[in-house]
Order: sequence, then C-alpha cells, then structure tokens
Amino acid sequence: MKEFDFINSQLVPLSDYIGDDCAFFDAKNEKLAVTKDVLAAGVHFFADDEPFNLAQKIIRVNLSDLAACGARPFGVLIGAAIEKKYFNQEWLAEFMRGVKADMQEFDFALLGGDTTTHNSPSVFSVTAIGKTNKPIKRSTAKAGDNIFVSGNIGDGFIGLKTRSGKYILPQPRIELGLKLQDIASACIDISDGLLADLGHICTASGVGAELEAKKIPVSSTKYDLLDLITGGDDYELCFTAPVDKVEGCYKIGKIITGSGIKLDGNFVKSAGWQHKSN
Amino acid sequence: MKEFDFINSQLVPLSDYIGDDCAFFDAKNEKLAVTKDVLAAGVHFFADDEPFNLAQKIIRVNLSDLAACGARPFGVLIGAAIEKKYFNQEWLAEFMRGVKADMQEFDFALLGGDTTTHNSPSVFSVTAIGKTNKPIKRSTAKAGDNIFVSGNIGDGFIGLKTRSGKYILPQPRIELGLKLQDIASACIDISDGLLADLGHICTASGVGAELEAKKIPVSSTKYDLLDLITGGDDYELCFTAPVDKVEGCYKIGKIITGSGIKLDGNFVKSAGWQHKSN
Repeated sequence: MKEFDFINSQLVPLSDYIGDDCAFFDAKNEKLAVTKDVLAAGVHFFADDEPFNLAQKIIRVNLSDLAACGARPFGVLIGAAIEKKYFNQEWLAEFMRGVKADMQEFDFALLGGDTTTHNSPSVFSVTAIGKTNKPIKRSTAKAGDNIFVSGNIGDGFIGLKTRSGKYILPQPRIELGLKLQDIASACIDISDGLLADLGHICTASGVGAELEAKKIPVSSTKYDLLDLITGGDDYELCFTAPVDKVEGCYKIGKIITGSGIKLDGNFVKSAGWQHKSN
Repeated sequence: MKEFDFINSQLVPLSDYIGDDCAFFDAKNEKLAVTKDVLAAGVHFFADDEPFNLAQKIIRVNLSDLAACGARPFGVLIGAAIEKKYFNQEWLAEFMRGVKADMQEFDFALLGGDTTTHNSPSVFSVTAIGKTNKPIKRSTAKAGDNIFVSGNIGDGFIGLKTRSGKYILPQPRIELGLKLQDIASACIDISDGLLADLGHICTASGVGAELEAKKIPVSSTKYDLLDLITGGDDYELCFTAPVDKVEGCYKIGKIITGSGIKLDGNFVKSAGWQHKSN
C-alpha cells in the first residue's frame, strides 16, 4: 500500500472530493461532459519526460477534449500504472506539483485517482469532467460553413522531433471553446492531426471539406506541409462556422457537400498518424 | 489508428454517447458519484485471463465502489493500453462481448474509451459514474454501531490461488448498496481486505472496531483467518449501522471509541495487502 498511501496523502489536501469510494458532485442545470485519454510511455510520451510537465500533459490532452466541446473543466481523475524505477518521492512530488499547478491554472478539482506500480513502462489514464450550457458536437457541420483552426498546425509534429513546445506541454483552448458555443457549428481538438480530425468532423456530419494550403498557419516552412497536417498532438481547435472571421483564428477552407478532404483541389488522405515517442 | 477504428466501431452501436470529444449527460436532481480503478497485468489480473471475464472484472471493481456509496451505475469509460500480442480481432471481440454483457446486466451506458497498444503487459483504467439520492460515506460511523459484511470474507484470497470465483468475476453489491442508503452509517467495498478497508472506515470516522472471529463468514476453514481478512478482492460490502440485523448480511462486530481494530480482544493490523497475480 505504499503507493496508495503516498498518493492519497498528497491528494487529500488538494481536494475535498477524495476519501470515499467515489467522489460526489452536483450538476444543477448544466450538462456534464466527460472524456478519457490513455497515454503510454514510448507511445505518447518519453519514459524520462520531466514528471512536472508530464502530469500537465496527461491532464491537458483531456482538457483539450473539453475545450472542443465548449465545456469548462470541473474535475479530473488520474489513473496511473507507474514504472517502478520512477516511483520515488522526488518523482512523485514533482508529478503532484504539476497536477496542482494545473488545478490552479484551469480551476478544476481532483475527483479521484488510483495508482499502481509495475515493472513496465508507465501508463496513465485521465478522465476529465466538464460542465457546459451548450455542447458543441462534431456532427453538425454544414456545407457552406468556413473551416477555422485556432493556431499553428504541425507544432506537435515539430515538438516531437525536438522534445519541446506543445508536444511536451499542450495548451488547451478552454476560453476559445466557451466562446465557440455561440459561433461554431462543429468542433474537434487536433490530437491525431488536422487531416484526421477534420476528417472526423466530415464523416460525422456527412460532408466534405476543401482546404487552401497557403492559408494553413505553420510555425516553420522547412517541413513538408503534409507532415504538418497529418502529425498529431497540436491540441489546437479545428471548427466550422457560418461566419467569415473569428478573432484570433485562421480560416483555412470551406465545408462542401460530398465527402473527403481536398487540399488545393486534390483529394488528400490522412496516412493515419500513430503517436510515437520512440 | 487501427486500434481506434476497431474499438470505436464496436462501441458506437452500443452507446449513443460516443462519437464526440466528450460524452454529454444530465444529472437532474441526483448527485453524481465517480470512481476510477487501475488494473495492471501481473498485478491485478493474469495476462492470459479470458478477455470476456477480464472486461467484466475491470468494470465490476468500479461498480463495487459505486455500490459502496449507494449509487446506481450510470456510465463507464474504459481506458486500455493493450499488450500487442493480445491485440487481435478474436481477443477484442470477446472483450467487447464482456463489456456488452455487463452493460445489460448492470444497466449502464458506455460513455467513452481510449485504447492504445504497446509491447508491455496490458493496463486498464475504468472510470465509472453513478447517480445517487443519498451518498453513503466512510467517515460517518459512530461508536455503538454494529459492523456487517455482505458475504464471505477471503474469497478473493482463495480465488487468487485457484484462479476462480470472485477473483475472476467480482459480484458488485449494487442492490444492497441502494438499500443501505437508509440503513448504513458508513460503508466501503472490500477490495484491499476486510481489515484494511474497515480500517479506512475507522480512520475516516475517528473510531475503533472490535471483531469476533467466529462471526466472520468464510467459505473454507482450511485457511488461516488472518489470511482471509487481509486478502483483497472480495468485493463484498463492509458497513456500519445502528441496527441489530440486516437481511442477508452478517454482523461481525461493533464500532467502539478510540482507534484500531481488535479481533477477539487483541489488536490486529493489516499487513498491507498487495494485489498480486504472479
């Protein structure tokens, strides 16, 4: 029980919710939004990533899902199977410092957690719960809507190569997501790559899309655009809206009838991004 | 994305909630109860356990937490990092058959999931969400209350040796938990062993407990009682109540002032059960 005792002793002071078999909460008149992501060492992160940032990354990829749905973070549950060689006071203290920093930055409660150790690479599974008055879905894009992204595309791809930037520390677009409740017809966060995730909107909505290459914002022109739009881990929002301009966002194309995604007039297909850290 | 596609194609027909970055739901006038457990191959289950039962086990250990809180299951999210050698159509189909069987038996929705594969032993993390009018907590046991358990103690310990019974397929006490809303002063499910879990009630409530050895129900007398009450994975409920009798349950002792747990007059200490499948 050493691991249980440690984590629990760290968590209880951070949250009123911990201490029973379940955490209890009310939703009043809002809808709840719930999401879960699994991250494995050697697949989604490097085994020796700094625990402070790693804690934030595993939380933020879930907050990014809440953002895409127009939900405010309310609470998070952290499941962890930690590789024994990393399971020491210092690593755990840094990890918890990261959890605590994000609880303050994004204003959510720690609703629960469960930790075990094993002799294999660490696996984390975070569940995030949000609240929303007006969920934004994937399936409601309409032909004629413009397509927007909230920031540079391919930063996750570049960050994976350099072990820096958004790959290490995603920036979930919570405030934008809330604002999009009244603007967007459909929204998704870019975790699998722009092409794949826009493809999810198109499939769910029964529409197609056309993109203009020169309008897609990128941080560097030294990479192949196809790599940047098929790389994952950007954690920007991709959304559709029947408006011409959204402050701080980039209009990159249009929703059309039919299916598939065209880039400068030619159909492109996501090769199927696989998260890969080694 | 092969794994994503597979799981998703299985899940969508099972649940209306899947398809967006989050699942949305209402709570109306009830409280929500949320819990998460992590299970790792070689720690909480055997890597070659049958996938049909394994799916049910990873869900049911969470439903058991809901039961302890007097909550009805509402929805489940399944996170899975599956060892590559098990990741084939047959294994997954059996796993999903287990999920589906329990969705029907316990009447919950699949709210989400995330799956990855890696070259290490599988790790699962399930989050279960329940609804309740009246949560039962751990911290509200009172001196003078009787202590009850809902079934035989140590079956998890015995089942681990024989790879059978409740160790393979826990039976969460959902109906009993709902009934206990109006009876129990405190409740917990026995996952870490009777002594450890009753100890959690005592610590949280600031009380002690005395147990009578001969009143503790066991399935076999050929094991040392101390092994049976410190072994984990029983998934029975242990609760306290200011009544003398609860139908179908066994009165095994009394809550007293002070701290610690006495067995037939002598203080006993949980050695600290570690889940261990090999």
